[in-house]
Amino acid sequence: MKAVLSVVLVLVVISSTIAKYIPKSGKRIPQTLSRGWGDQLIWAQTYEEALYWSRSRNKPLMVLFHLEDCPHSQALKKVFSENNEIQKILDEDFIVLNLVYETTDKHLSPDGQYVPRILFVDPSMTVRADINGRYSNRLYAYETGDINLLISNMQKAKKLLKAEL
Amino acid sequence: MKAVLSVVLVLVVISSTIAKYIPKSGKRIPQTLSRGWGDQLIWAQTYEEALYWSRSRNKPLMVLFHLEDCPHSQALKKVFSENNEIQKILDEDFIVLNLVYETTDKHLSPDGQYVPRILFVDPSMTVRADINGRYSNRLYAYETGDINLLISNMQKAKKLLKAEL
Repeated sequence: MKAVLSVVLVLVVISSTIAKYIPKSGKRIPQTLSRGWGDQLIWAQTYEEALYWSRSRNKPLMVLFHLEDCPHSQALKKVFSENNEIQKILDEDFIVLNLVYETTDKHLSPDGQYVPRILFVDPSMTVRADINGRYSNRLYAYETGDINLLISNMQKAKKLLKAEL
Repeated sequence: MKAVLSVVLVLVVISSTIAKYIPKSGKRIPQTLSRGWGDQLIWAQTYEEALYWSRSRNKPLMVLFHLEDCPHSQALKKVFSENNEIQKILDEDFIVLNLVYETTDKHLSPDGQYVPRILFVDPSMTVRADINGRYSNRLYAYETGDINLLISNMQKAKKLLKAEL
C-alpha cells in the first residue's frame, strides 16, 4: 500500500513538473495563421514575407483584410473557406496573406481601410488597383454573393503584368 | 434494395459536395501563430500590430526572430516553450511576436539579422538595444543555457523607459 502511494506521489510530482503553462483564464485554442479562411492553405505571416514569396515564385498575391468581430467578414469567410474552387486555385497559383491589422503601405488601401477587402498584388510588386468588386464606393469589397466575381478576378490576377508588356 | 442504393448515392453526392479542399500532396496541419514558442500565448501577427498593442496596453514587446530549419532556434524553442516562468511572465506582462521573416525596420537588427535573436521594445516604441545576451558578437542571441539571463532581461524590459524620466 505504501509502495503504491509512493509511486502515485512520484507520478504526481513528475506530471506537475512537466505540466505546460495554462493561463489563469483557462486553456486557449492556439491561434492559426489561416484564421479560418482556409486551413489547408499555406499563409504568409506578414506583407514583407508575402511579397518575397510572390516575387521568388512568380505567383500573384492575394491580401485579405478582415476583422474577427465584423459580421460581413465572418459571412464571407464561411463561403470563402468552403468553396473548393477558390481554395484550390489559391493553393496552386497564389501566395495568400490575411491580415486583421492594416500595414503601413498605403497602396493596399487605394480607397480606404474597410473590411472585408481583397487586393491582388502582381509579382512585379504592383498592387492591382484595377481588379475591382461590385461596389463603386468600396472597390475592393466582396459580399457572400460575389464569389463568382471573386473567382473571375482571381483569373485576372493570374494574368501577370509582365506578360502584358 | 433500389431505395437503399439511392440513399447511399445521395449521401455520397452530398458528402463529396461538402467535402473540404485537400491539397494533392495530402492534408496539412494548420499553421499556428505561435509556431511552437508557446501555444497558450496570444501572439501578434505583424510588427505593426505588436507595436499597436504595446502602446495601447502599455506593455513591453518581445520580438523573437527564428527559423524553422535552424537547429539553434529549435533547441531554444523547446526550452522556451516548456519554461512555465517565461510563459507566465510573457502572457501576463508582455506583447509577443515571433517572426521567421525580417521586417523592414532596421532598428530590429542593431548588429545584424541572425537567428535566434530576441529584441525588446518599450511601449514608447524604443527598441531596447541596451538589453543584451551573453555574446559580444551577437548581442541579442540566446542559447538554451541562457534562459535565466533571458528571464532577468525580461524583468529589465518590464521597467519601462517612461518611468525612468
